[in-house]
Order: sequence, then structure tokens, then C-alpha cells
Amino acid sequence: MDNNSKIFKSNIIFTSTKEAFDIYKNSYIAVENGKVTGIYEKIDKDLEKIPIFDYTDKLIIPGFVDLHFHAPQLPNRGLGLDKELLPWLEEYTFPEEGKYNDIEYAEKVYKKLIHELWKVGTTRVSLFSSIHKESTELLFDLFIKSGLGAYIGKVNMNRNTPNYILEDTKTSIRETEEIILKYKDKSDIVKPIITPRFVPTCTSELLKGLGNLAIKYNIPVQSHLSENINEIKWVKELEPEFKDYASVYNKFSLFGQTKTIMAHCIYSTDEEIELMAKNKVYAAHCPNSNYNLSSGIMPVRKFLNADVPLGLGTDISAGHETSIQKVMVSAIQASKIKWLETNKKYKPISTSEAFYLGTKGGGSFFGKVGSFENGYDFDALVIDDSNLGDINNLTLEERIQRFIYIGDDRNIIERYVQGRKIEEPKF
Amino acid sequence: MDNNSKIFKSNIIFTSTKEAFDIYKNSYIAVENGKVTGIYEKIDKDLEKIPIFDYTDKLIIPGFVDLHFHAPQLPNRGLGLDKELLPWLEEYTFPEEGKYNDIEYAEKVYKKLIHELWKVGTTRVSLFSSIHKESTELLFDLFIKSGLGAYIGKVNMNRNTPNYILEDTKTSIRETEEIILKYKDKSDIVKPIITPRFVPTCTSELLKGLGNLAIKYNIPVQSHLSENINEIKWVKELEPEFKDYASVYNKFSLFGQTKTIMAHCIYSTDEEIELMAKNKVYAAHCPNSNYNLSSGIMPVRKFLNADVPLGLGTDISAGHETSIQKVMVSAIQASKIKWLETNKKYKPISTSEAFYLGTKGGGSFFGKVGSFENGYDFDALVIDDSNLGDINNLTLEERIQRFIYIGDDRNIIERYVQGRKIEEPKF
Repeated sequence: MDNNSKIFKSNIIFTSTKEAFDIYKNSYIAVENGKVTGIYEKIDKDLEKIPIFDYTDKLIIPGFVDLHFHAPQLPNRGLGLDKELLPWLEEYTFPEEGKYNDIEYAEKVYKKLIHELWKVGTTRVSLFSSIHKESTELLFDLFIKSGLGAYIGKVNMNRNTPNYILEDTKTSIRETEEIILKYKDKSDIVKPIITPRFVPTCTSELLKGLGNLAIKYNIPVQSHLSENINEIKWVKELEPEFKDYASVYNKFSLFGQTKTIMAHCIYSTDEEIELMAKNKVYAAHCPNSNYNLSSGIMPVRKFLNADVPLGLGTDISAGHETSIQKVMVSAIQASKIKWLETNKKYKPISTSEAFYLGTKGGGSFFGKVGSFENGYDFDALVIDDSNLGDINNLTLEERIQRFIYIGDDRNIIERYVQGRKIEEPKF
Repeated sequence: MDNNSKIFKSNIIFTSTKEAFDIYKNSYIAVENGKVTGIYEKIDKDLEKIPIFDYTDKLIIPGFVDLHFHAPQLPNRGLGLDKELLPWLEEYTFPEEGKYNDIEYAEKVYKKLIHELWKVGTTRVSLFSSIHKESTELLFDLFIKSGLGAYIGKVNMNRNTPNYILEDTKTSIRETEEIILKYKDKSDIVKPIITPRFVPTCTSELLKGLGNLAIKYNIPVQSHLSENINEIKWVKELEPEFKDYASVYNKFSLFGQTKTIMAHCIYSTDEEIELMAKNKVYAAHCPNSNYNLSSGIMPVRKFLNADVPLGLGTDISAGHETSIQKVMVSAIQASKIKWLETNKKYKPISTSEAFYLGTKGGGSFFGKVGSFENGYDFDALVIDDSNLGDINNLTLEERIQRFIYIGDDRNIIERYVQGRKIEEPKF
């Protein structure tokens, strides 16, 4: 091992599979060039020269991965949640997003955003920005400074949206390409993602242009799919020649032709789910958002059974919680209601399954991320759970469960991305 | 006004009715002998000698009221939530409750409990303790020291429970009476409540004895009702001669003959709901618990429509969150899913309705509590929400909404009960 080697000593917990927690009590995890090389009960004499970071009695877990977050909606958290999706977009979301032609406003919000993600232990995130190129580039630059990992997508919209955030098709495609060229090779962990908002705000021509860019530069894609019954009807009216919502994206190479995230997927048909599995399209499950906008409950178990890749999303600001840990709990709760609703057809997800979704499940979109198997990026949180109750002696499995349910950012005492310690941003 | 007069200056927010927030911007609330005497835009010259507590730019809201909390389950928060009600009781809850014959163990937990309630802004709570008299009395004594308000009930169980927490009927009734006699007049705001756990663990003989005590001393009652389908079937098997679950309690004067709280009421029939309304029996809605144990979603709107008195409960530790503020959000979310499930029959509850349930709704069980109308106890929290985002200028209604959704205990900077400032307990 060389100078880029580090060893962390602690209780090490992750989910290599969703069925159970992998738990290594009071062990050593070796990291070389930012990647995990092994977990050991003891360390050999010859490793003793390597710096050891001693977090005895704490927990080390993978950093949280958020597959769906609207960066410009940060100031709207907790507001307007007595509405459904479409009126909420018109009354709250679009007016806020219109402000990001003002780069100074964007800077204020985006700095706060990175502080917030750092605070809640999100080490990788897939972000929608707004339509604005300059603000989006600022978001890239701030993320690169922060050390956190992100996919960042300039939003594309050329129909059915207020004039102040309506793009013409050519500009929308051209600016997207400019951002791709500027940022595709600038950072290992902050990367562009093509981001048509959703079918109702994007014409076929725009979708086609964006799909071409995805293929040309091998850039991933994110959008929304089947969040709300009225939205699905609207798509049917707008695109009557397509058999379903997913087919629109699929026709234009925006559905797994490069790696793809679709947020929500509450009402996806069996055929659409099959296509997602076949094309390895990720579903971003955003239970808080789906509750808050009265959208419904996504049948997570159905997607797991169908082998659709799956992660969690906060969906700020339709979701109110920035913490993926809180979303894990909401996902478990939602799956229990779905179990009852489906007459016990779809088994609730367990705590380890929810943890998997919020770490390795979503993390796999970013590469070898979200686990501590050999070769995985050491993206990690150090958890001090001593304030959560020291009355009974708990097993490590009980401690991680308790942290997920009742811990919060105050319990996160360190963050690492690819083996680098990430300090709170100076900006 | 005399020496017991105080004036608080701030933005004052409460819900005298559930339909909307009452909002007084930058105003003065006058308190005399612990009770609100008025809210003023300006104060007269002659009031200037009264001490003014200046919380300009903050929010003053009523303290939170928790109608359902199992004190001895505090150490189990976040544990065992992959189970349903009945196995969870056997594997997690009962073994923990067995420990409270050890007064030292009880003391450790109950001190932490009061710190926790103080921290999250719960100023009034209705508690189940365990079957143990001595530990229950300790809980009374600690509450009286703390300055927080509580109903505290020694739990009664004489069947279908492990031997180590099984009572004989006479002892159960005798000890309950001893606690009533000792504490019924000891404090204005810490009072006994009769607490048969639920029908499956209480024989008719025990219920009859407890009902007699309720009537004899005019003591309120709390129990569980219709939380889980299997539980309801079990009650039917145990008490086949009763037409429904509520009728068992009602027969023995435990259903509104003195003021009564029934937790959960997820599957209550129309007839049971009608009886609750008629007898003014409170339903304690505990959405987190009902999610976590896969119990179901209580139709809050149906209860509101039927004029059943209603409040919120954390139901620690089936619920994981000690904060009623978090329960408000879960209640809104649950009502939205119920709206979808019932084909839009039961309208979701709004933010102000959820706030009402967690303040005045539950507070009315304690007297004139949970509002700032004239004559109400000044139970209040001072909220500093400045860290929740200062980017856009928000209305006070938006600020209270945002606090409910994304604030936490860190935003609560002072607590008052009946006009007295409550410091963090010294113990």
C-alpha cells in the first residue's frame, strides 16, 4: 500500500445485498486510492505504518445517495403542500424556478443547497437545476469545489410552461450541448445528465434532440414518469400515437439507451415496468413527495420483483425532507400501506432493504458506490449514535435500525467521498 | 393586572378553529395567573409596568399535546418495526415493560423521557406507564418536578400477557386506587388516568372494577381501540357476547362516562364512531405507529365529520417520533393516502387542521389548553425559524407551515406551561 492508503477502525455496516445488513464489529476497513480493498478483524504488522482513523464504538456506513432532487426548489421546502402536482407546479414551483435567471439569487440558494446535502450525509445526488445555463454551470462549479458527487442536469422545457421559463427548442438543445462539452470531463464525480423535465413540457422535437445528445456523448438521462393520474392522462392527450408514457421517452433514446433515472413510477403498467427492467432504467422512489402531493404509493416490491434498478429520492421540494435517512423510513411505511392495499400481495420492505435502496441501490447509478465491498468507492458517514439511548445494550443491527428511524444529521460526525474527508463547505 | 401578569411580544400563531391559522403579526399577548387575557397590536401606557418578554421576529405557538405515549417503551424507539402489532408486543414491548419492577431502571428511563418531551416541545402528554405501582409513582413525582403537564396511568393487565407482567385482578384494582388517592389532588397538571391496556389483556371483572373507580373518583380513562384486524378478531373471540369492541369498554363505564381517550380507532365501525361522538370519547390518531406496525390508516376526516373529539399521539415506541410536529406531517400524509384509497371521499386534512389536532384538539382533553383564546392556559413554544431559510420573504402562514414540515427541536427556544417558563430538567 502507498501513500494513498488509509485504514478506518469502527463498526462497519452496509448492505451488499438488500436481504440483510453486512455487519463487521470493531473492524478495520482498508482504503487505497479512494477504494475499499478489504475489511479485517485485525491488522497485520506490515500495515501499521498506514494512517489509522480510529472511530471505535461509532458506526461507519455508506454515504446516502439521492436519485431525485430539484436544486432550485430548495427555498420552497415545506410550502404549498396542500396542493396536487399540477396546481402545485403552477403556483409554487414554476415561479420559484423563474428566479434562476438571476445568477446572484442562484448562488445564494445553491451554496445553501450544498451545505444542506453535506449536513444530512448525502454524498451523491442527481439534481435537476432550472432551464438556466449560467445558474446550472454555477451549480457544477460549486459541487466541484465541495467534494460531493453529483449528476447535474439543466432542465429542458419548450411547451406548457409559463413564458418566463419557456425555451425555444434550438436554444434548449444548444445550451444542453454546451454544458455537456464544458463539464463532461471536468470532474470524476460531478457530471452532466440530460434532463427533459417530463413529456408534458417537451415536444417530440426537443426529446429527439436530447436523445441524440445522450447517444452522441454517452450522457445519462433523468426525467419524471407516471407520478399522477392526471399527468398520465395529459401525456395521453399530448402524445396519442404512443401506447404509453414510457414509450415516448423510449422512442427518443431517453429510456435506458444511456443510463437513465425515472422519478416516481407510481402508476407504471406491467409493460412499462418490463421495459424498465429490460433497459435497466432506474426508478427513483420518492415516497414523501408522493404523499405530499397526494400522488399515491409506488409499489416498490413490484419493482424489486421485476428487477428494475431502484433508488430513493427526496424530490425536494415536493418532498420536504432533504435526508435520505428519513426517506428510508417513509419508504418502509409506504410499502406497509401498499401491502395492506394490495391484500398482502406486495410484502413490505424491511429496514435493510430500505437502507440498500438509499445506498447501494441508488449508488450503482454512480458506479461502484454505496457499499463497502472490495473495489467500491469509500463514500462513508461516521455515525455517533450515543445520544440515541444508552440504556440497553443493543446489537449493531439494532443500532443501525435505531439510527435510521430516530437519528438525524446531528449523529453524522464525518463524511467521506472516495476516501477524502469532506469538510463543511467554506462558502 | 398584578404580579402574576406577563406580556409576550412576538408573532402569535394558533388555531382557535381547525379551518385556518389565527395569526397576529408582531403583537402582544397578555397572560395573567397563567391564562391568556388578550392579544393586542399595541399596549397601553398603563401596561408598561408589566414585564415584557420580547420575542420579536420569532413565532409563539401553543405547546404540543401528545394524547398517546407508552413511557416504558422509550428505550425501544426505532427497534423491531419489521413486525405487526401482536408479535411486536410479545417480542419487544412486553419484555421491556417487564423491567419496570426495577425502580432504578425506571428512574433512568423516566428521567430521559422527560428530557425528551421537553426537547420536542410537548407540554402536555397522556402516558401509559407499566403495571408497576412504584415506577408509576416515580413517573408522577418526576413530572411534578418538571413543570410539564401529564395524565399518567398505571397499566392494568390480568390475562393474555407473559407471567412477569401479569396482575391478579384485586391487586390491579387496589394499586390503581392507591395511585388515584395519592395523586388525584397533588398537582393541578399531573393527574392520574385509568389505563386498562386493551380488552385482550383485561377480563370483564377487571374492566368492571376499573370503571367503578373511574366513576367513584371522576378519573379519566385511556385505552386502545381497533388498531389491527387480528386484534379485533381476537376481541370478538374473547368477548363474543358484545356486538363490537367499543361496547366492551362502554358496558364497564370506560367509554366516555368520564373523559376518555381511545388510541388508534383505525377500523371503528360507523356505530362505534357514533357512540364515540355521543359519549365525547377522544380518538388519539397515531399515524406513525399505524404505518410502522402495518396497522392501516385511520380515516381522520370521517372522525372529524362525525364530531368525534380528536388529537394526535406519538405512540412511542410503535411510533418512532417523539415530536408531535412530525406526527402532524404524518397525519397529513396519511389523510392524503386515505383520500386516494376512498376514491376521494375523505378530503385530506390541511396543515392548519393537523396543527389544530396537535394543539387545541388534543389540548381540550386537558382543559382550556392548546390555544391562545382568552381564558386558555398559556402553554407555549417560542420558535426561532431563522435557520430554515431566509432567502424569500415568507408570510407568517408560510413560516408556520415550513416550521411544521421541516423544523425540529432545534427551533424551539423556549417552553411555557401555564405561563411558567419550563427549563430543561435538572435531573
